[in-house]
Amino acid sequence: MTITSEVPKVKMETFNQYESEVRSYSRSFPTVFTKAKGYKLWDTDEKEYIDFFAGAGTLNYGHNNDAMKTLLIDYIEKDSITHSLDMATVARGTFLQKFNDIILQPRNLDYKVMFPGPTGTNAVESALKLARKKTGRTTIMSFTNAFHGMTIGSLSITGNESKRKGAGIPLAHSISMPFDQYNAKTDSLSLIESYLENGGSGIDLPAGIIVETVQGEGGINAASDEWLKGIEKIAKKFGILLIVDDIQAGCGRTGTFFSFERAGIEPDIVCLSKSIGGYGLPMALTLFKKELDIWEPGEHNGTFRGNNLAFVAATEALSYWETDTFAKEVEEKADLLSEFIRTLVKKYPELKAEPRGRGLMQGVACQEEGIAEKICHAAFERGLLMETSGPKDEVFKFLPPLIIDKAGLQKGFQIIEDSLKTVLKIN
Amino acid sequence: MTITSEVPKVKMETFNQYESEVRSYSRSFPTVFTKAKGYKLWDTDEKEYIDFFAGAGTLNYGHNNDAMKTLLIDYIEKDSITHSLDMATVARGTFLQKFNDIILQPRNLDYKVMFPGPTGTNAVESALKLARKKTGRTTIMSFTNAFHGMTIGSLSITGNESKRKGAGIPLAHSISMPFDQYNAKTDSLSLIESYLENGGSGIDLPAGIIVETVQGEGGINAASDEWLKGIEKIAKKFGILLIVDDIQAGCGRTGTFFSFERAGIEPDIVCLSKSIGGYGLPMALTLFKKELDIWEPGEHNGTFRGNNLAFVAATEALSYWETDTFAKEVEEKADLLSEFIRTLVKKYPELKAEPRGRGLMQGVACQEEGIAEKICHAAFERGLLMETSGPKDEVFKFLPPLIIDKAGLQKGFQIIEDSLKTVLKIN
Amino acid sequence: MTITSEVPKVKMETFNQYESEVRSYSRSFPTVFTKAKGYKLWDTDEKEYIDFFAGAGTLNYGHNNDAMKTLLIDYIEKDSITHSLDMATVARGTFLQKFNDIILQPRNLDYKVMFPGPTGTNAVESALKLARKKTGRTTIMSFTNAFHGMTIGSLSITGNESKRKGAGIPLAHSISMPFDQYNAKTDSLSLIESYLENGGSGIDLPAGIIVETVQGEGGINAASDEWLKGIEKIAKKFGILLIVDDIQAGCGRTGTFFSFERAGIEPDIVCLSKSIGGYGLPMALTLFKKELDIWEPGEHNGTFRGNNLAFVAATEALSYWETDTFAKEVEEKADLLSEFIRTLVKKYPELKAEPRGRGLMQGVACQEEGIAEKICHAAFERGLLMETSGPKDEVFKFLPPLIIDKAGLQKGFQIIEDSLKTVLKIN
Amino acid sequence: MTITSEVPKVKMETFNQYESEVRSYSRSFPTVFTKAKGYKLWDTDEKEYIDFFAGAGTLNYGHNNDAMKTLLIDYIEKDSITHSLDMATVARGTFLQKFNDIILQPRNLDYKVMFPGPTGTNAVESALKLARKKTGRTTIMSFTNAFHGMTIGSLSITGNESKRKGAGIPLAHSISMPFDQYNAKTDSLSLIESYLENGGSGIDLPAGIIVETVQGEGGINAASDEWLKGIEKIAKKFGILLIVDDIQAGCGRTGTFFSFERAGIEPDIVCLSKSIGGYGLPMALTLFKKELDIWEPGEHNGTFRGNNLAFVAATEALSYWETDTFAKEVEEKADLLSEFIRTLVKKYPELKAEPRGRGLMQGVACQEEGIAEKICHAAFERGLLMETSGPKDEVFKFLPPLIIDKAGLQKGFQIIEDSLKTVLKIN
Repeated sequence: MTITSEVPKVKMETFNQYESEVRSYSRSFPTVFTKAKGYKLWDTDEKEYIDFFAGAGTLNYGHNNDAMKTLLIDYIEKDSITHSLDMATVARGTFLQKFNDIILQPRNLDYKVMFPGPTGTNAVESALKLARKKTGRTTIMSFTNAFHGMTIGSLSITGNESKRKGAGIPLAHSISMPFDQYNAKTDSLSLIESYLENGGSGIDLPAGIIVETVQGEGGINAASDEWLKGIEKIAKKFGILLIVDDIQAGCGRTGTFFSFERAGIEPDIVCLSKSIGGYGLPMALTLFKKELDIWEPGEHNGTFRGNNLAFVAATEALSYWETDTFAKEVEEKADLLSEFIRTLVKKYPELKAEPRGRGLMQGVACQEEGIAEKICHAAFERGLLMETSGPKDEVFKFLPPLIIDKAGLQKGFQIIEDSLKTVLKIN
Repeated sequence: MTITSEVPKVKMETFNQYESEVRSYSRSFPTVFTKAKGYKLWDTDEKEYIDFFAGAGTLNYGHNNDAMKTLLIDYIEKDSITHSLDMATVARGTFLQKFNDIILQPRNLDYKVMFPGPTGTNAVESALKLARKKTGRTTIMSFTNAFHGMTIGSLSITGNESKRKGAGIPLAHSISMPFDQYNAKTDSLSLIESYLENGGSGIDLPAGIIVETVQGEGGINAASDEWLKGIEKIAKKFGILLIVDDIQAGCGRTGTFFSFERAGIEPDIVCLSKSIGGYGLPMALTLFKKELDIWEPGEHNGTFRGNNLAFVAATEALSYWETDTFAKEVEEKADLLSEFIRTLVKKYPELKAEPRGRGLMQGVACQEEGIAEKICHAAFERGLLMETSGPKDEVFKFLPPLIIDKAGLQKGFQIIEDSLKTVLKIN
Repeated sequence: MTITSEVPKVKMETFNQYESEVRSYSRSFPTVFTKAKGYKLWDTDEKEYIDFFAGAGTLNYGHNNDAMKTLLIDYIEKDSITHSLDMATVARGTFLQKFNDIILQPRNLDYKVMFPGPTGTNAVESALKLARKKTGRTTIMSFTNAFHGMTIGSLSITGNESKRKGAGIPLAHSISMPFDQYNAKTDSLSLIESYLENGGSGIDLPAGIIVETVQGEGGINAASDEWLKGIEKIAKKFGILLIVDDIQAGCGRTGTFFSFERAGIEPDIVCLSKSIGGYGLPMALTLFKKELDIWEPGEHNGTFRGNNLAFVAATEALSYWETDTFAKEVEEKADLLSEFIRTLVKKYPELKAEPRGRGLMQGVACQEEGIAEKICHAAFERGLLMETSGPKDEVFKFLPPLIIDKAGLQKGFQIIEDSLKTVLKIN
Repeated sequence: MTITSEVPKVKMETFNQYESEVRSYSRSFPTVFTKAKGYKLWDTDEKEYIDFFAGAGTLNYGHNNDAMKTLLIDYIEKDSITHSLDMATVARGTFLQKFNDIILQPRNLDYKVMFPGPTGTNAVESALKLARKKTGRTTIMSFTNAFHGMTIGSLSITGNESKRKGAGIPLAHSISMPFDQYNAKTDSLSLIESYLENGGSGIDLPAGIIVETVQGEGGINAASDEWLKGIEKIAKKFGILLIVDDIQAGCGRTGTFFSFERAGIEPDIVCLSKSIGGYGLPMALTLFKKELDIWEPGEHNGTFRGNNLAFVAATEALSYWETDTFAKEVEEKADLLSEFIRTLVKKYPELKAEPRGRGLMQGVACQEEGIAEKICHAAFERGLLMETSGPKDEVFKFLPPLIIDKAGLQKGFQIIEDSLKTVLKIN
C-alpha cells in the first residue's frame, strides 16, 4: 500500500479542523479511505470494507473498473481534451454515438441528449426549466418522500423537511402529491386526477410531474407498474410533461438500464447522473423527446458540462448494456438480496421490519426509531458500508455495486445479520 | 495524432443529430477538438488554436499541465479512491491541509472549507443558504450584470434577462443594485446605503450581499477598490454577510489568488470553482468564517462532493502559490495585455471601444452591436479561441491561461488585430 | 315609486357604456334595481323579485330592516360620527359591548375583536398575517373548492382556477388539501395527518388551517361535524392555528350564529363579514383568542375600519340573537327548504341532481353542465333571484334572507320548480 | 348633545377590553368621539376638535355634509337599494353617468370604471391584476416610501418596513425604485431607464409602474411634474402600464380632481378611494383606458362593490367639480398653508425642519426623532387632530378637509404653533 505510506499525515483530525460541520459521511464512516477496487475499499489502516453503499448509487460498475481505468490513463497520457464546456470533442461525440446506439435506439427512445452540468441537481433543474418553457406553466408536481437535489429548484420538489428548511426561503411552484401506497386510506391516482380535473381544487395545472420509480433517499419506496402507468396516463390526459428522475434508480440499479422500462412507460424527460459516468466521475444527462428540444443555445449552461474524463469512462460503461447478460446477472443477484431480506425480516420478528425496494436497490424498514442507524454503525465496525434512508432514517439500505459477486453479497449479508443481532442483543 | 486516427468517425454531424439545441460553444467554435496542451488546442483536422478562452476561466494553469498529469495517472494507477461523496480520503485531506497552509494561513483567512458539489452554482447556492440560515432573512442583494449560475437560487441573483427568462418562474428573494459605475448619474454606494437605512425603502434587509469583483459574464466590469471597501462597510454596518463570488475572477485570474486581496476586504463567504480544480476537473469550494459554520451535518449535500481526481490536481495547482513568482508573472503579462488593449482602442477609433477589466481578465467593449461577435468569429478562423461577454455580447474578452508565455500572447494579439481589421474592413 | 320617476334616465346602457367588462351580476340579473324590502326587490319597471340570493349572504336580516333603518336615519340626522378609522366612537363602543354580551360571552368565546377593513378579504388577510406572525411559519393549509377572497393573500388559498389565474402571478405559501368527502377514495383526515407527521411529505408545517364549514362559492359543500372535529384535533396536535372563515356561513346562515357551533369546535381565529353589518353595509371582523392578540398597533390597518353606519345597524342586528327564537325559526325554514330539495331531486330524476348544504344555505348539484345556470335564468325571468355555485357552476343555490316567511319560501319554491320544468322541457 | 346622554356607557375602557391591540388611532387620539360637522368633531365630554386629519384624506368634503346628508336620509327612507354587489341600481347608474359627465369627459379621459370592492387596497389589487393580465408579466415597479395598502398584493409594493414584516411571508413580484429626490446622489429617472434598457440589470420588465404623485404615508413627498412626465415617458417607451394611486392625493386634495392633472400625464390606470365616497362611506374605483378593459366577467369581485349609500353621497360630491370655484378655493387655502409652513420653519430654526407637499396635503419634516409625534400629541390636547407621516414618523402632516374656512385654518395654525412652542420649550 504505497499511497498510505507516502501520505502518512492524513488523519480524521484534518477534516475536523478544516472542513465545515456540514460534512456527513465522514461521520457515519469515520475513517480515512485510500484505495478501492470493485466492491471493496480500504482505509489508511489497511482495513478492508465491503461496499453496500456504492457512492449512493454512483458506483454501479464498482470502484476503479479496469477497462475504464486503462482508457482513462491512455486518454490522459495523450493530452486529450480534459475540459471543454459544450465544445465538440472526440470523447463527447463518441459517447453521444454509443449512447444512442446501445441505449436509446434499441429501446425506441427518440431522445435528444443534453449535458446540463455534471450533477444530478443540474439535470433536474434543467428538466424543470424545460417543462416550464414548453407549457408556459409554473407548478411542478412531485411526490411525498421525493428527493431531487439541493439547489433551490430541485429542493422545492424534495420532500425532506430538514433539507427544505435549509433553503432559508419558502419553497414555491411545487405541489407534493401522495406517492404510491403513501397513505393506506388514499388512492393516490384517484386523488391526483380529481385535483387536476376539478377547476376548484386550488392546484394550478402543472408543467410537469416528476417521479422516482424507486425513491432512493425517501425510504426505498418502489412504485408499482400500475401506478406508474396511471401517472403517465394522467400526465398525457392533462398535457403535463412526465419527468422520471432516474439519477439513483437508473443505469441498471433496478435491473434494466432505465428503471421505468418494466412499467412500459415512456417519460417525456429523463434525468440521469450518478452511475452514468461509469467511474464515479461527475456527469449528468437530461434526455427528452425531440419535440421538446426548444432550448435557445446556451439557455441553460454550466462550466463543467464537458468533463471528458467522465465521457471516456461513461462510453466504456455502456458496453455492459450491449447484450442482456449484465441485466440478467443483476436480476439474479437481486433475487438473492430479496430472499435474504425476506428471511431476515421473518427470522427476526423483534426487528418489526418490512422489506422495501426492487433490484439491487432494496432496504429494510424498521419500526423502532434509531435501530437502522445502529445496524449501519455496527456493520461499519465489521467492515461494511451501508447507509440509512427515509424521513426518519428508518430504513437500512442495500445498494451494492451491480458488479458484486455472490461471495461478496453473502459476506455482506453475514455482516449485516451479525450487526443486527448485536443491535437487537441476540447472543 | 493517434487519437484522431482511432476515432475517425466523430464529426460535427454527431452533435447536431444527437445533442440538444441548447449546445452553444460548439456553435461559436464549430470544430471537433481532440488534443490540448498549455495554451493550445488541436482539432481532428490537426488545426492548432491559441486559447484566449481557457474554458471560461477554468484552465488558469493551462491544458493538461504535466505535473498534475503525472500525479493523476499515478493516482488512478494505484486504484486510489475516485468517488467518495464527503467521506474522508487521503486526497481530500491532503488538499485541505495544503489549501490551509498555502492559501488561507498566509492571508490570515480563518475560513472553514465546504465542498458543496463540484460546480460554481452549487457553491453559490450553498452560500445563499448559509447567509439565510445565519441571519434568518431571505433577501440577497446582488448587482446589475451579475452572473452567479443557472440553478434557481443562483439564477435569482443573476442579471441576464434571457438566462432569467429560462427559469420559467418569477425569480424572487433578491434585489439587484447598481454595480460600481453602472449608471453615470447614480452613486451606487450612496443609493444602497439609503435603501438600507430608510425603513420605508421597500427593500427588505438582506441576508447577504453577493458580488464579483470583476464581472466575467456581465461585461468584464471591474469594481474599484474603494467601491468594494464601501460595500464591505455597508455590509458590516447593517449586519449583512458579504459573499464574494470568486469563481471566475479567483485563482489568480486578476493577479492575486483571491481577486479581493488588492481591495483589502475580507468577505464572510467566498465561492470558488472553475480553476480551483487545476486540471479542468469539476470542483467547487465554499469558504466562510469559522463563526458561520452553523451547518447541520448533511444540510447541504451532493453526490460529487468527493471528486478525488480533482483534489489531486487541485493540490498540485496550489504549488503555484507557494511563492510570489507566479503572481508576478501574471502581473507582467497583464501589463502586456493592458498595453495591447490601450493601443488597439486608440489605433482603431472606428471601433468606438473602451478597455475593460483587470489582470488577465480584460476585454474591449464595442459600441456597435454585433461587432465583438464578428471579431471572435474571425479570430476563430485564424486559430484563436475567444468569447464575448456583456448583456449584448458587446465585449470581446481576453481570458488566456495564466501560464501562457509572451510569445503566445503576442501571437494571439496579432490574430486579434488581424481579425479586427478584417471585420472593420481595414485593408 | 318616486325614486324611479325622479331618475328616469338610468338604463342598462349606462352600465354597458361606462362600467368595466368585469361586472357580473348585472349580466345574470339584467335589470336596474331601485327598491327593496325584506325578501323582495323591485326594478325600475316596478317588477317584483323574490330574493333567494340575499346579496350573496350579506342580507340575512333582509333588505332595509325597519328597526335598523330608523336607527340609521336617527344617527345620520344627529350628525354622529360617520367615518372614524379606528378611533373610538360611541357607535363602535356600543357594538363592541353588545357583541361581547350577546354573542361571545354566552358562547364562552374569549375572543378579542379586530376591525380589519370592511370586506371579507380584509378579514381573511388579517387572519393569515396573524397566524404567520404567531407561528413564524409561512404556509397556510386550505381546502379544495375553498373561496376566501380576491386580494393576493386570500386568493392564494382560494381553489377556483379562473379566479386564481386572475392573480397574474403564481400563488404561493399555501397548500390545498381535500375537503371532507372531496374524493371518494381519499380519507381527508388520514391524508392530512400523514402529510403533517411525516418529515418527508414535502408539505411545510402550516401556520394555519383555514376552513369554511359550508363552502358557499365552491359548491355548497357542508363539512360533517366529525370532520371539523378531526381538523381541530389535527390543528391542535401540530400547533397549527385553526381559522374558520365564517363570512358566508356565519351570522345565522346555517342556523346558529357561528356555523361551527354545532360541531362543538373552537377556532383560534374567526373571520366575519357580509351579514355582520346587518343592513348590507361594508363591515368585517376578525376574532381571535386573547393569547393571539400580539399585534403591534397599526400593524394591519385600513381607511374604512370605522364605518359607523354599519356599526349602528350591526348592533341592532345582534338583537336577533338575544333569545333563541330567531335560531329556531331559521331551523324550521331550513327544514322546509331541505324537504323541498329532497322532493325536487326525487321528483325530477332527469335532473340527475343531489342535495347540498345545511340551514338556509342549501343547493342542488346538477350533473349536466349548464343546467343550473339555465334554471337560475328562467327563475329570474319569473321574478326570483338565485345564483349558481361550484367550480363548474353546477349547483343552484338557495340563500334566502333568514327573515323570509313561509309564504315567501313557498312562492320561491314554486318559481324554481316551474323554471326547472321549463328548462327540462317537462310539459 | 342627545346622543352622548343616551349612551353614557361608552368609555375608552370598552376598547381596551374588547378590541385588539392592533387599534392605533384610538391611542393617538384617546377619547370617544360622538359627533362631527364640517371640519370639527366632538367627543363624549363635548370637547371640540379641529380636524387637520380628515379621516386620513377621506373627508375632503368635511364631516356630514348637509347636501349629502339630506340625500342619504331620503334614499334610506324610500327603501332604495342599499347593498347590490355589482347589480345595476339607480344609484350606481346615476353615479356612473355623473362621474363621466363631470370628471372624465371634461378632462378627455376615456376611462372605463370598475368598482373593485370598497377599499383602497382593493382598487390597488385590481389594478395590479389588470396590469399583469394585459402584459403577461409579473413584476410591478413601485417607489421608495410608497404606501398602497395592507393586503398581500398591495403590501408587496409598499415601502414601510414594519408594515411589510407584518405580511409574515417574503413579499415578491415587485421592485422598489428611488422616488423623485429620494437620494441626493441618484438621478432616479436615469437609473430606472438604465435598469430597463439593459438586458443584464437583473430587473425583469415590469407589468406596471405604480406611483403616488404625493406620498401621503411615506412622508408627504411630492414628485415634480418633470419627474412624473419622465416616468410616463419611460412607461410608454417600454410598454409598461402607468398606474397612479390617487387614493389619498386625488379627489381635489392637491388642488385638482386628479393629482396628476398639473403634470399633464395620462395614466393607464387610476386608483381612487377615500374621498370618492364623499361622506366617508366605503367606496373605491379603478379607472383604466378602454383598451385595457379585458376583464372576464367576475374575474375580480367582492361583496361590497355595491355600497349604494356611498354612491348617493359620491354623486352629490361630484357637484363640487361642476365649476372651477372649488378648485380655486382649495388653491387659495393651500397658499395660506404653504405660507404658514414656510414661516414656521423659518421662525423656529431649532425645529430643524423642512416643508413638504403640495395643495392641502402638506407637512413639516423634522430632523429630530420623536418631535413630530410630540407636536401632534400636544395639538390633540389643545383640540386639534393631526397625524404624523414618514418612515420614522418624522413629518407632522396637514390634511384638513378641503371645505375648511380660513378662520378654521387660522385657528388650527395657532394651535400648532402653540403646541410646537410647548414641545420645543419656548416660553
